[in-house]
Formats: sequence, C-alpha cells, structure tokens
Amino acid sequence: MALVTSPTRPGPIVSAAIIAVGSELLTPAKIDTNSLFITEQLNILGIDVKAKAVVGDERAQLEHVFRSFLARADLVVFCGGLGPTDDDLTREAVASVLDRPLAEDEAITAHLRARFASRNLPMPMPESNRRQAMVPLGGRVIPNPKGSAPGLWIDHDDRLVLLLPGPPRELRPMLSELREGPLKARSAGVSLLRRVVRVAGRIESHVDEAMHPLYQEWERATPPIAATILAVLGSIELHISTRAASREAAAIALESAVAQTVAILGADVYSTDGRLLEAVVGDLLVERGLRIGVAESCTGGLIASRLTDISGSSRYVDQAVVVYSNEAKTELLGVPPDLLREHGAVSEPAALAMAQGIKARARAGVGVGVTGIAGPTGGTPEKPVGTVVVSAVTDAESRVRTFRFFGEREQVKFQASQAALDMVRRMLGESGKVEV
Amino acid sequence: MALVTSPTRPGPIVSAAIIAVGSELLTPAKIDTNSLFITEQLNILGIDVKAKAVVGDERAQLEHVFRSFLARADLVVFCGGLGPTDDDLTREAVASVLDRPLAEDEAITAHLRARFASRNLPMPMPESNRRQAMVPLGGRVIPNPKGSAPGLWIDHDDRLVLLLPGPPRELRPMLSELREGPLKARSAGVSLLRRVVRVAGRIESHVDEAMHPLYQEWERATPPIAATILAVLGSIELHISTRAASREAAAIALESAVAQTVAILGADVYSTDGRLLEAVVGDLLVERGLRIGVAESCTGGLIASRLTDISGSSRYVDQAVVVYSNEAKTELLGVPPDLLREHGAVSEPAALAMAQGIKARARAGVGVGVTGIAGPTGGTPEKPVGTVVVSAVTDAESRVRTFRFFGEREQVKFQASQAALDMVRRMLGESGKVEV
Repeated sequence: MALVTSPTRPGPIVSAAIIAVGSELLTPAKIDTNSLFITEQLNILGIDVKAKAVVGDERAQLEHVFRSFLARADLVVFCGGLGPTDDDLTREAVASVLDRPLAEDEAITAHLRARFASRNLPMPMPESNRRQAMVPLGGRVIPNPKGSAPGLWIDHDDRLVLLLPGPPRELRPMLSELREGPLKARSAGVSLLRRVVRVAGRIESHVDEAMHPLYQEWERATPPIAATILAVLGSIELHISTRAASREAAAIALESAVAQTVAILGADVYSTDGRLLEAVVGDLLVERGLRIGVAESCTGGLIASRLTDISGSSRYVDQAVVVYSNEAKTELLGVPPDLLREHGAVSEPAALAMAQGIKARARAGVGVGVTGIAGPTGGTPEKPVGTVVVSAVTDAESRVRTFRFFGEREQVKFQASQAALDMVRRMLGESGKVEV
Repeated sequence: MALVTSPTRPGPIVSAAIIAVGSELLTPAKIDTNSLFITEQLNILGIDVKAKAVVGDERAQLEHVFRSFLARADLVVFCGGLGPTDDDLTREAVASVLDRPLAEDEAITAHLRARFASRNLPMPMPESNRRQAMVPLGGRVIPNPKGSAPGLWIDHDDRLVLLLPGPPRELRPMLSELREGPLKARSAGVSLLRRVVRVAGRIESHVDEAMHPLYQEWERATPPIAATILAVLGSIELHISTRAASREAAAIALESAVAQTVAILGADVYSTDGRLLEAVVGDLLVERGLRIGVAESCTGGLIASRLTDISGSSRYVDQAVVVYSNEAKTELLGVPPDLLREHGAVSEPAALAMAQGIKARARAGVGVGVTGIAGPTGGTPEKPVGTVVVSAVTDAESRVRTFRFFGEREQVKFQASQAALDMVRRMLGESGKVEV
C-alpha cells in the first residue's frame, strides 16, 4: 500500500485532539470507543491526547470545534462522517475551515465503482457514493482496503489533520499502518509503551493488594513505570506503561515490569502479550497436539464461537454441541437420564458426563461440559441464577467446579465461557509457567 | 433538600454541551460514561446535547473548551474536577471564563468539617479541602448528600452552567433531582423522543435513497422529524427523533414516521422497537410454535449463542451443532460424503443438507445450515474469503443463498449469523408485515 509521506518537515507532533463525528454518538445509548484505540496508537509515538470531542452531524458545530482544537494541538484526528450520505459532513467542514476547495478524485471514484461491482448487487452504484471521492486541495488519500471511504491526510501549516473512517474495522488497520510509517516519521521519537497483563481467577482488590509493593518500586524506577488496574468481565487487566527516550529502553523496562508481575501473580496470569483467553487456549491445544470438544448448555454456543474466532482453530475444533434440553444431553452426549433425574441438569455429575460425552463423540483430547442457569428466570434457592457448573476432562484428569456469577444473562454466559476456557488453560499448562 | 430555583426567567434551555474533566479520561483504558446518563436526563426535558468533550486537568484547555461551548449551547454541564486537590480545576476555570471571583462559602466549609469529623480519622481536615467550599460569585450550591464536593448552579446572562461531581453515585442523584425540579422549570417543556428502525438486506446508500422523499417531508412537518442513518455490522439503523410540546404528541408523531418508514422499506425492516434480530426471530418462533435447530460450520456456534442470548430461548432452542470437519457434518447431520466430495463443504447443496440434517435431528420446525470461509486463510479464486452459504428449511419451504462478506474473520462470522437469522425471519414472517 502506497502510504503518504510528508514533504515538508515542520516541528514534531507531540499533542493531539480527537473529534468523533456522528449524531448517534450524542444519544444516551451510543458511546465513542474509537478514540480509545486512537489514543493508544498515538501514545505509542509519545503523542499526548489533550482533548477529545463528540460532535453531531451539524456542520457549524463541527467547524467550530475543529477550529478550536486546531489552535491548540499539533494533530487533529477525525473519525467518522466520511460516508456517502448528506449527513456525512466531515470532508466539507474540514475543507471549509482550512479554506481548501473540494474536488473529486477520479481514482477513488473508480475504486468505489469496482468495489461496488464486486458485490454482485442487482443495481449500479448510487451517484451519491461519489461524495466519498471528494478530497480537499492538497489532501492526500489513505487507501482503505476494508471499506469504501478512504482516509485523508492534510498537512496544514505546522499542523496535521487526519480524517479516518468511523467503522473500527476500517479505522484500526489504517491508523496502525500510519503509526508505523508516516505518523512515526512526524513524531518526536519519545516512546510511550504499554503492556496489558491479563489475569483470571482473582478479584480486582486482591490483584491490587498483591501488586502494591511493586507499584511503589515502579514509581521510583528510571524510567518510572505506571500501572492502572481495570476490572473487565471475567478478567482483571493490569495496564503497565512507561515513557523513555527510545522504544528499546521503554521495551526493556516494560519487559522487566511484566516479569515482576508474573512472578507475583503466577499461574493466574493468562496473557502478557495482548492475547485473549481463547487464543491462549488455542495455542496450548496446538502445542499439545490435542483437539477440543465442547458441550454447552447455558453458554449456548458461546465457548465454541469464541474458540472459532481464532484463525486456524479448525486444527483443534472439530465439533461442538449445544444441548439445551435433557433429551439432547442424552441423545447427543449419552448422559444417562437417571443421572439427570437424580442430580438435575445443573449439577457436577451432569457437567462431567457432558464433558466425557463430547470428548468421546468428537474423539478429542479435551472435553468441556458447561451447564447452568443464565437467568433471569429459572433460579431456585439452592441453585440461584448465575449458578454454573464447568467441567473439563482429558485422558489424564477430570475437573469439575461450581461457580456463582453475578450479572445479566449475557454477563453470566460470558463469565461461564471464561471459566471454562480458563479451566482448560490451567489443565494444559499445569506447570504454571507463563511465557513473558 | 433545598434546591435552587431560578430568580430571573431567561429563554428556555433547549441545547446543551457536556464537558467531562480528568486526565485519566484521556488514556486508552478509560472512557467517560457520565455523559450518557446526563444526555438521557436532559433528553427527557427536550434538551438536545449538541457536543461533548473530554478535557484533562489543564486549566487553559478547560477554559478554552468551556468558552467555545458556552457560545453555542444554552446549558454547559461539567462533570468532575471538583475534588480537593491541585489538579481539580473546574471551579477556577469556570470562575475565570465567567469573570466571577471565587469566595469561600462558610456553610460548605462547616459541612465539610462535620463530614470529615464523622469519619473518626486521627487527624483534622486538611486545609486543602477548603478548595471545595469555593463558589464563584452568584453561584448557588447544590447539596451533595453522597460525597464532599457540592454541585454548583450558575446563571450567566441567558446561559446556565452546572458543575457536577465526577463519581456517578454522587452525580446521578444530584442531576435526577435537578431534572425533576429547577432544571425542568428552565426547560421549554417539550419532549424529545427517539426510535430506532433496524433494516437488513439493504446497503446504507440504498436505504438513504429510498428514504430521501420522507426526509424532506419530515423537515417541513409539525413537529419536524429528524433522522440519522447508521451502518452497523450486518444492519442499517435509522435513528428517528422528534421534539414536541408533550410526550404524547412526540410519541404520536414518531409512531407515524416509523409507519411511513416501514411502508417504504417493507420487509427489510426487522425491528422498530429496539429489538435485536435474534429477539425478533425468537418472538416469531414462539408465535408460530416452532423450534429451531442450527448447524454451523464457519459461524462456529455464534448463531446458537446469539439465539440463546435471549431470555426464554429454551422454548425454541433444543440443540445445535458446530460441525467444522467433513466427518462431523456426516456423522452428526448425515450429510453424504459424496455430496461433500462433489460440491465441496462450502456449497449450496452442503448448506441445504446441513439444514435438513439438523432439522431432522432436533425434530425442529426450522433447520438452519451455514458453511463458508471466515478467513483469513482458506479462500480460493472461485470461493474467496467471505464466501458464506446460508440455508434455512421448514416443512413447507427450503431456501439457500450464497453471500460474499467483507471484513475480518469475526466480521464475516457476524454478518453470516445475521444473514442466517434474517433468512429465518423472512421465511416465518413472509407476509412482510412488520408490527410498528
């Protein structure tokens, strides 16, 4: 991909402001999350985000905020408002504030037509889509392999303005590529690096307590290490960061901080390199040359779906079943009706029998069985909503454990899937060794 | 609680801007969510949020954004930056921009001292806490029963400025009370209502083109109707809103706008009441008294997981299978090996056989089969990554269709699940009637 490069060399970019565009982002139900990814990418280059704003599809307001941010940050990043419709106003607002006329870029139009044609739709491209080919004078086009709206890079005096598309799957690869190339060339060369250490099986305050002595040591270190603790559903995340003159110095300092963290938290750490739990489990299965079979009741397919989110999962996922009814548990997994009658479908014997049943059926090295009460109905005093039994079996070992999760139906499902994947991870990686 | 009331009666408040204060909200791991609650509360009073911003603990930037918002909104709401420490700058910035000197309010200081004493701490209140008792001239105090920092209400010319504490448990009750009392008295007495119309099977620009005549009619209507179109993965959303003298008038106007939309977009509309596609399909299954069986290859359990996200789905989900390998397709669903050899696993005959197989196995009224190439590997020139075949069968009918989706693995999976659920929806609701 031919990315833009900067012809002139104004001062380095050290500050930025972000403008998310879209009236839907000003309603009580939607939130701008792109700015988090943008912040992360800019921080890697030592660029600090000074302010961010959300503006609706209203041109005067958009121009007003843009003008105000342009006066106070080296870089202004827009996300959104680049679509083909009348309420996509980012291009127009930017062109007007920078006083650069818009002109159609024929190459973009040709690309849009080709993309449209490839979809085999029974109609030609609407002419309105040509709005996406309009470029402010002097603006350079950033290709968008994932969507129709290209990005735009505009050098303006000593400022830089970036227009990025709103959909995260388009914005993310585009910005990552800029960050590694032309944007890096414009930054001051101070590196801010972050690592995320992901932990399962401990609550936030316990992680915090265990980490406390390290925090104090890190504050006085050179370079100082900063840490933020974050409780997300089914995990605790430690965000560890540092800023140093070189990327290498920052990386070395972070590496050692991560190693200290793992030494304290041990096998509860499941990832230090950004991998999600489903990827960690997938890698362990590949390493051990094992297939996994999953039998899900209350998680309803979520564990299988998470495992198969990982590219290459066909190496270890062959089949999985969702067995909501008792009949299905018996028919598909051979769980004896007597067992279900005696102990109930939400019981340790049932989960174990499900895990054994799917392991045999899928001729897999690991079998997983999950049964529980996701809610909001179906709870009893002995087995309230959120009760979930998780079992994992291998040729060598069987485990089963009863959990009690809080939250809505979807939260219970996710936590149950997390507990099941974590049980498999611990069984396969029993040594407790986590590679840093 | 003695809440403030407005002595003068300037014009009603119809527009607002929100400023969240705090450097931690400008890092990649934290997001301002207070503004969602504030937006909801203001919308109830017909007050539109025109823009929102996040600003760090930096006074010049704070003043700059405040000045810019004050020029363009009737109401500016601050949240955060009211603490006792040096980096809590909201009071100072507001006082400076409004040119109102700060003075200590003795009643607040007395309240702070009493609150501090009640905690039985072995030291007196630090003098720095008296910062929280500083009030800009003319500002009125909003009591904070949940914390130390009181809120502030400042009438300034025809504008209103509200300073609210950052912690949600303090902000929420304070704002709710204002909304029911003095803020309501200052609002125009109109109601702002919203509806979301969700559409499948059309692209954004086609929806936009079809809706264009309506947009123009709505602009001139009384009350005027506003619409924003939004492309989310696998759906197009139309956000329709209106503002009227009463909640009832707004509801009636919206109802009719939604009905007009459905008349134009027909069966492509799957929801007008916020329901997700999996809930719509669930409701249709309950209505028709049918169970659904799902056989998934490339979606890997996602369809089953989405169906079982809905509470009560055990009424129509009994079993589902994930069949990644050819052997699993044959063993679990009876798909003939010859068929797979001749047509390939990603083919219309294979998807159809999977749908029929799971329908029979689950003794269900509807069978769904999905097979495809989620990527990033596995594509061929004839069947590139993103090729997905979806089939749905009932006793009366069989459908099968080949799609080509863009995006990463997870996006392909989601769009495929959406296409499958939408196929079922259309088969079950063939009349094309959508209840508004």
